Amino acid sequence: MSTAGQVIKCKAAVAWESGKPLSIEEVEVAPPQKNEVRVKILFTSLCHTDVYFWDAKGQNPLFPRILGHEAGGIVESVGEGVTDLKPGDHVLPIFTGECKECPHCLSEESNMCDLLRINTDRGEMIHDGKSRFSINGKPIYHFLGTSTFSEYTVVHVGQVAKINPEAPLDKVCVLSCGMSTGFGATVNVAKPKKGQSVAIFGLGAVGLAAAEGARVSGASRIIGVDLNPSRFEQAKKFGVTEFVNPKDHDKPVQKVIAEMTGGGVDRSVECTGSIQAMISAFECVHDGWGVAVLVGVPSKDDAFQTHPVNLLNERTLKGTFFGNYKPRTDIPAVVEKYMNKELELDKFITHSVPFSEINKAFELMLAGEGLRCVIRMDA
Amino acid sequence: MSTAGQVIKCKAAVAWESGKPLSIEEVEVAPPQKNEVRVKILFTSLCHTDVYFWDAKGQNPLFPRILGHEAGGIVESVGEGVTDLKPGDHVLPIFTGECKECPHCLSEESNMCDLLRINTDRGEMIHDGKSRFSINGKPIYHFLGTSTFSEYTVVHVGQVAKINPEAPLDKVCVLSCGMSTGFGATVNVAKPKKGQSVAIFGLGAVGLAAAEGARVSGASRIIGVDLNPSRFEQAKKFGVTEFVNPKDHDKPVQKVIAEMTGGGVDRSVECTGSIQAMISAFECVHDGWGVAVLVGVPSKDDAFQTHPVNLLNERTLKGTFFGNYKPRTDIPAVVEKYMNKELELDKFITHSVPFSEINKAFELMLAGEGLRCVIRMDA
Ligand SMILES: NC(=O)c1ccc[n+]([C@@H]2O[C@H](COP(=O)([O-])OP(=O)(O)OC[C@H]3O[C@@H](n4cnc5c(N)ncnc54)[C@H](O)[C@@H]3O)[C@@H](O)[C@H]2O)c1
Ligand SMILES: NC(=O)c1ccc[n+]([C@@H]2O[C@H](COP(=O)([O-])OP(=O)(O)OC[C@H]3O[C@@H](n4cnc5c(N)ncnc54)[C@H](O)[C@@H]3O)[C@@H](O)[C@H]2O)c1
Ligand SMILES: [Zn+2]
Ligand SMILES: [Zn+2]
Ligand SMILES: [Zn+2]
Ligand SMILES: [Zn+2]
Repeated sequence: MSTAGQVIKCKAAVAWESGKPLSIEEVEVAPPQKNEVRVKILFTSLCHTDVYFWDAKGQNPLFPRILGHEAGGIVESVGEGVTDLKPGDHVLPIFTGECKECPHCLSEESNMCDLLRINTDRGEMIHDGKSRFSINGKPIYHFLGTSTFSEYTVVHVGQVAKINPEAPLDKVCVLSCGMSTGFGATVNVAKPKKGQSVAIFGLGAVGLAAAEGARVSGASRIIGVDLNPSRFEQAKKFGVTEFVNPKDHDKPVQKVIAEMTGGGVDRSVECTGSIQAMISAFECVHDGWGVAVLVGVPSKDDAFQTHPVNLLNERTLKGTFFGNYKPRTDIPAVVEKYMNKELELDKFITHSVPFSEINKAFELMLAGEGLRCVIRMDA
Repeated sequence: MSTAGQVIKCKAAVAWESGKPLSIEEVEVAPPQKNEVRVKILFTSLCHTDVYFWDAKGQNPLFPRILGHEAGGIVESVGEGVTDLKPGDHVLPIFTGECKECPHCLSEESNMCDLLRINTDRGEMIHDGKSRFSINGKPIYHFLGTSTFSEYTVVHVGQVAKINPEAPLDKVCVLSCGMSTGFGATVNVAKPKKGQSVAIFGLGAVGLAAAEGARVSGASRIIGVDLNPSRFEQAKKFGVTEFVNPKDHDKPVQKVIAEMTGGGVDRSVECTGSIQAMISAFECVHDGWGVAVLVGVPSKDDAFQTHPVNLLNERTLKGTFFGNYKPRTDIPAVVEKYMNKELELDKFITHSVPFSEINKAFELMLAGEGLRCVIRMDA
């Protein structure tokens, strides 16, 4: 019996208030409208960006909301005008989209689609400015256009990557945000040359995916920086060769790294969201040729600050969303890299919980334990 | 009669105190020591960097000092160990050097030689930490290792570019700093693609040389930004197609430019030295692919500040010294570009004064009049 065109009642984890445990509720999910698809989520994982908007300390609060943006699922039905996708397709919903028509989508360099780029403050669908989620008729806000902490969700077609149906969704779900973001930040943006040194700030899943990118690029030294010493043991498996804990030093970490490397690393990738780490990641690259790439999501009132001479001394500073990948065009090929064993994902998935225990994933991330916790929707 | 090995007595313009007119004095110029050459300066011009260290408001004061770093001359004698240069060679002394041995000199990307990079606080020669200039035995400080406001000066061999002896020194002298800096900032660092839009902040000589680089690169729009409206008429000759005076607008100039260009320019080059202009030059480039290049020399207490989201939105920020040219390796070829009429220089030279009237060059620059004033040493 097809559910297409019908309201679906299913379970979703609703964030009612900032910082309070999510509660699993029965929600109504409206059918997809023009250029939308409804996706049955099979696996979703928790990324730090979810946590920022859940605790809403440095971000605008918007509640009640269904969070979640790292996931894999199967198309249940499609709305008017959708031609690239059909029910049964295996997909990754992605927090930043690709309309394929705007100047960004047409540019070789950008993945910041004018229509569908990440918008953390929007809680409704673009088509009609309404939510597809409700509880007893009361709307619940979307998050990043994905809201994957629900058995069914509605997503704009431009935010959906169609992938190889053989790919195990419980693994490749992490490519829908964190792993692609970190890996791409290194291989697409920082672009270390063979033999160069790379510093990675933040050894969570995004940072370790960035380290994986450095390893694949043939970096000679991969220096991991984290405030949490328990990250270091784990990071060795990801090719990180040296460790610096800023807390162990009286001087700024950029000075420590400069001393370790005869003036600075060739590349750095910041994956923390801490403004202090962003500044250090920039200032620790070698003058003359160093490139620093910012990935972490800052608080809304943060200011990046440095003496302009640090720039004049021929350092380059860049930032990136989603590792500069275009979600629909590029991600299917990244999934193939996993299928061909060119890219490892399994080691990033350190925990797994049934949907009913989703709050455990939040607890693990807040405690800095593990990398990705995959949430099994059918369990 | 050779002067090699002898102390030379000649005229130099000495800055005794910050902000006070230079005074022409008889100075003694010691013979060049190991890896040094003594150069007879024929033409020198005034760059804004001289003015900053003369008025010493945002910079460390160091007096008495012989300023000057944009010049052309002829080698008078060479010190021990100098094999690349001989008396009679036509040369440009350059404020940043090239030892040809350090990691920067060996890197394809950097021109920030470890030994000879610009050092604005050093007032002596590297070899022995002493000055080669004195008046009645009292040492006078060097500036940038060049001190070209003197009939004779001593320069480290790594800071001397040997050029085509046919090249007119009264013209190519401006390639020893300003014109190479601006032109190179665009063609070597900002690298606009054909048809892209470029904003130039500061329409002094450096900025107009950057505009010349944009013109040569085939930019479709060259937007000039300056606080001094008298710059605009002149800038038309340099291919600048549109003008913005920040004073004419209530909103920040980066907003004005974003509105003129549907989101921002593709490239910007800052040539003002104003920290506010540096921030605007960065924030006015298009997200997704925009590249901003800083050239202006900041005050020592300035802080570059921006919201990190401006970076995450895939803008690139860079800085450069001397247009990323390696002085000895690259500048002879830039001189050839002038000889082959691929690069225009004459239009940058708006004034010329005899050495005795050097203070007039300062007055012109302080009044924002003209571009380069060439000072004729023999007049
Ligand atoms: N730009 C994007 O497209 C994008 C996509 C996904 C995630 N992110 C961001 O990337 C960052 C990392 O995400 P994650 O899921 O790996 O988070 P995580 O919490 O698993 O890892 C972050 C790590 O950074 C460390 N850290 C925090 N402050 C630090 C500091 N000052 N110095 C050194 N280490 C510090 C923490 O101890 C932690 O180990 C977050 O800011 C997240 O929002 C950005
Ligand atoms: N990085 C290097 O290698 C290098 C080399 C040479 C010169 N410089 C620097 O380049 C800058 C330009 O040098 P120049 O000789 O052309 O100076 P200049 O004085 O001839 O020109 C500077 C122009 O900038 C304008 N300006 C000042 N503040 C501004 C603002 N906030 N917004 C817009 N316009 C503003 C002025 O009106 C002036 O027209 C100076 O800072 C100089 O020290 C750097
Ligand atoms: Zn994420
Ligand atoms: Zn688009
Ligand atoms: Zn100069
Ligand atoms: Zn060198």
